[in-house]
Amino acid sequence: MAKLGFVGLGIMGGPMARALMRAGHEVALWSHSKGKAEKIAAEGKGATACASPAEVAAKSECVFLCVGDTKMSREVILGSNGLASGKKGALTIVDCSTISVSESRKIGAELKAKGIDFLEAPCSGSKAGAEGATLTFMIGGEPAVYERVRPYLEAMGKQLYYCGAAGMGLQAKLSQNMLLGGLLQAFNESFVLAAKAGVDLNLLLDIVNNSAARSGMVSGKAPMALARNFEPNFSVKWLEKDMALMLESAAEHNVPAPVTALAREMLRAAIAEGYGDEDIIGSVRVLEKMAGCKVESAHK
Amino acid sequence: MAKLGFVGLGIMGGPMARALMRAGHEVALWSHSKGKAEKIAAEGKGATACASPAEVAAKSECVFLCVGDTKMSREVILGSNGLASGKKGALTIVDCSTISVSESRKIGAELKAKGIDFLEAPCSGSKAGAEGATLTFMIGGEPAVYERVRPYLEAMGKQLYYCGAAGMGLQAKLSQNMLLGGLLQAFNESFVLAAKAGVDLNLLLDIVNNSAARSGMVSGKAPMALARNFEPNFSVKWLEKDMALMLESAAEHNVPAPVTALAREMLRAAIAEGYGDEDIIGSVRVLEKMAGCKVESAHK
Amino acid sequence: MAKLGFVGLGIMGGPMARALMRAGHEVALWSHSKGKAEKIAAEGKGATACASPAEVAAKSECVFLCVGDTKMSREVILGSNGLASGKKGALTIVDCSTISVSESRKIGAELKAKGIDFLEAPCSGSKAGAEGATLTFMIGGEPAVYERVRPYLEAMGKQLYYCGAAGMGLQAKLSQNMLLGGLLQAFNESFVLAAKAGVDLNLLLDIVNNSAARSGMVSGKAPMALARNFEPNFSVKWLEKDMALMLESAAEHNVPAPVTALAREMLRAAIAEGYGDEDIIGSVRVLEKMAGCKVESAHK
Amino acid sequence: MAKLGFVGLGIMGGPMARALMRAGHEVALWSHSKGKAEKIAAEGKGATACASPAEVAAKSECVFLCVGDTKMSREVILGSNGLASGKKGALTIVDCSTISVSESRKIGAELKAKGIDFLEAPCSGSKAGAEGATLTFMIGGEPAVYERVRPYLEAMGKQLYYCGAAGMGLQAKLSQNMLLGGLLQAFNESFVLAAKAGVDLNLLLDIVNNSAARSGMVSGKAPMALARNFEPNFSVKWLEKDMALMLESAAEHNVPAPVTALAREMLRAAIAEGYGDEDIIGSVRVLEKMAGCKVESAHK
Repeated sequence: MAKLGFVGLGIMGGPMARALMRAGHEVALWSHSKGKAEKIAAEGKGATACASPAEVAAKSECVFLCVGDTKMSREVILGSNGLASGKKGALTIVDCSTISVSESRKIGAELKAKGIDFLEAPCSGSKAGAEGATLTFMIGGEPAVYERVRPYLEAMGKQLYYCGAAGMGLQAKLSQNMLLGGLLQAFNESFVLAAKAGVDLNLLLDIVNNSAARSGMVSGKAPMALARNFEPNFSVKWLEKDMALMLESAAEHNVPAPVTALAREMLRAAIAEGYGDEDIIGSVRVLEKMAGCKVESAHK
Repeated sequence: MAKLGFVGLGIMGGPMARALMRAGHEVALWSHSKGKAEKIAAEGKGATACASPAEVAAKSECVFLCVGDTKMSREVILGSNGLASGKKGALTIVDCSTISVSESRKIGAELKAKGIDFLEAPCSGSKAGAEGATLTFMIGGEPAVYERVRPYLEAMGKQLYYCGAAGMGLQAKLSQNMLLGGLLQAFNESFVLAAKAGVDLNLLLDIVNNSAARSGMVSGKAPMALARNFEPNFSVKWLEKDMALMLESAAEHNVPAPVTALAREMLRAAIAEGYGDEDIIGSVRVLEKMAGCKVESAHK
Repeated sequence: MAKLGFVGLGIMGGPMARALMRAGHEVALWSHSKGKAEKIAAEGKGATACASPAEVAAKSECVFLCVGDTKMSREVILGSNGLASGKKGALTIVDCSTISVSESRKIGAELKAKGIDFLEAPCSGSKAGAEGATLTFMIGGEPAVYERVRPYLEAMGKQLYYCGAAGMGLQAKLSQNMLLGGLLQAFNESFVLAAKAGVDLNLLLDIVNNSAARSGMVSGKAPMALARNFEPNFSVKWLEKDMALMLESAAEHNVPAPVTALAREMLRAAIAEGYGDEDIIGSVRVLEKMAGCKVESAHK
Repeated sequence: MAKLGFVGLGIMGGPMARALMRAGHEVALWSHSKGKAEKIAAEGKGATACASPAEVAAKSECVFLCVGDTKMSREVILGSNGLASGKKGALTIVDCSTISVSESRKIGAELKAKGIDFLEAPCSGSKAGAEGATLTFMIGGEPAVYERVRPYLEAMGKQLYYCGAAGMGLQAKLSQNMLLGGLLQAFNESFVLAAKAGVDLNLLLDIVNNSAARSGMVSGKAPMALARNFEPNFSVKWLEKDMALMLESAAEHNVPAPVTALAREMLRAAIAEGYGDEDIIGSVRVLEKMAGCKVESAHK
């Protein structure tokens, strides 16, 4: 069994760390929020709560992290008391966060200069995927590092896609969310209009689910909207962040992305109206308020 | 066996009329394009080519039509030598075209005043659905008329959705295409950026097909783009027309639809660049040209 | 002095008719809204209230109209009891409404077939321009007809632009409002953000008025917003209508117009939130509500 | 006469440094591009070319800089051999670049900790304004520092707006460019459509210049487009950068900015098509190519 570490124990990171523990590994834990590491450490044997990322690194041969944004990622890895500063023996860092492609490449290069291996492994599958250890990982980095880390990723996920050199994993992950963001706003417009026009929305959902316009997003999340359930699996603020990262990448590559840019602004409208922490499907309420109607199941 | 008629014998109407013939009905045929009715009539017994929609109506108890836009629909139904003018006995007209919701309602009302029953039954399933008689129909109009017409629709389609009063079938159909239009542009941006960034597009397609961002549109059409095949199943100009109809409906109901409006303009950019008659997936070339890269399978 | 007519006596039409009366002409009047014609007729000598557009035409050699949309225009001109049906001697009809370019051309052609001359003369200048007889007219149609009608237009306006054949006047008028619509939304975003960021808006207005970003719209209307005065000079619903006409024209000419399409949707958001009858600057409140701040003069 | 410095000697910085020299000051010069400092130093007495920003600072009581983006600004001020590292006596740094509001605030705070005064003074007026010393400055920072620096700014500009605390000058500057960016795209759409529809563009320009849609941008730049002159006064890539900065600010303040986001993407389309280094009015060619027509003076 390996000596692993996990940093960032939120909605995603918590269950991911537990999956590594279930697989029998010793796991050193740290999180920004006080008490989380202790709580998880208390659940299983071989897990330890640490006082800093540096301490986690000192105890581990391989550390995973899953944090909220690019800045946190850099801070936890390269900041004072960061992972890099705690290195004792051979160390591999695997970043499961969804962050800036170019920043991730830079972090990898800086770590390499310190003799630390780095792999990016952003994931999709939301809360349920993390809890069921059925995540999808999109990996970018050196193949040899990937081969070494693979068994641990398999303990947390079901599907592993090796996407190529550093940056390619994030690019693939973000491509997917770019699609999701456009699709979400198209859904919002389509279903709010249908609601206002008097279409039976349960029937419409059936029709869509049997058409070329069917999608995982709509079949999974439209029923939540119809039931007025906006509990976050994947929250508005995270999708907005991913769209912003994608626009950054589009700017670097000189690819115009008008629908993505507009979809991002609609997400920001949702944040401005106070829905940032709710599920992305909750963004439908921006249009609902304007239109004066709701995307909900027909009244009996 | 019934005496039926079919007007409009294009990519969709041709195979739909043949499906009615295969089901054993006598079918009177007419099309704008010369020679089409004769060609189809020659294929099976009981089919006759007529000189006008009026002649079709004179020979039929129920006439179907599938034409390109709202104006053609009105012309064929209520114009000089139109279906209404040919009525002899009881007559039912079923419009399978995707046209303006409000215009369709008006046509129905005008027909009612002339003692003619009317049903809207727009369909989805593209060319393949028409040829395999596996179309999906979204029906709006009086239930009694629907019940009478149902067996004929079942001869052409696999799935029948009765959506309610006049207008509801079109509204449901267009809601679906509104989703499709937003999704298409999100795909275009996502995959062109991925191509430019060097992502393996076959791999990305795999990833998307296994994610919440998966959709019938992308799984069905992305492989066409990767193979540079833009043969029309559903062409750019028709989707643009449907988006315009949806914006008309959004304006009537006072529902802002920014992503739909933008997606429509991107389709118009595709038309402006000469891709109007190719498959909707061909719209990807607008961004490709700007970005200087192609959404195609990796070179071996 | 000539025998003239005026149909449509709203915010624009009322003062325009009065300007013709002041110039000494006999003016036959009719309006959809009951009582308006009588009220204006009572103000001056030589003016008569009529019972229908047909009666106006019967009494006039040249009739002007200024109505709300394309449909009304057709109705008043070619409908039952319309102007055309009242023709006695030689008749010229001058449409000052801002309507669909292609529809206006059709109306002109239909009138020509009836021996009636037609000119389009949409105007800008808002309420103040109508009241002060300082309107700007953009004329399309036959030069000879224009020369005949010119003195009457000069009685109502200060600037006359002959733009060419039928359609060119409307096209020029709408080009201008297309600019206005994009500019308005850019203003809304710019000033709401500045307000939220704590910029002194009176100072910002000064800066803008002295920069390349200065415009008649902002220098004229931003002070209204800062003073929270949204009384209509040019109301949201009319600009939305003009943007829709421009998108119709863009579709005919295959010119993509993404910013126009989006600006129109933002106007529709303003209508959806109940600001349709207020001045276009009132549309700023859509973003204000989202952002939780107001574009208003700094508190002392 | 004061001992001043100027760093960044491009289209704007070059003439600005010369204006300080003309006012009789000793000016220490440095630029990224080799040879520029030497060339300008050779033009007047009292000017010296330096080997680094640090050397400029060592010789100056007040250093101005005008560089291309946020990163360069930080590098030149706080990087190795940057201005801060060269400080000998009392030093004031005035950043005339248009950069990120939040980054500028951070730079100011870091300089304060080193005992260096900092002022932001972004300017507008383009090349002509720099050459004629008629720039407009929008100042943010401490009033006392501003008072000390004011005479030097007056040597370079005509209009000085003190906008408040750190960040307010940039915010005001960017608000203006946000307006400009939306207006530019509205112009592009409006005039390309007019061209395609056959409107006389010189006449249209006249009409616009006499309407509420008139603007400094259109009256100044439309004639350039009509004459097919795209020589940069203010280039596409700089406006795109400013729009990106504004979207960053909008994200910080949670203000949705859909038209700004879309206008930025259209600028990126212009960059993608190779127009990044031409004047912003050159962006009209993106739509022109799609529409197959040109915004140019009518053929005689």
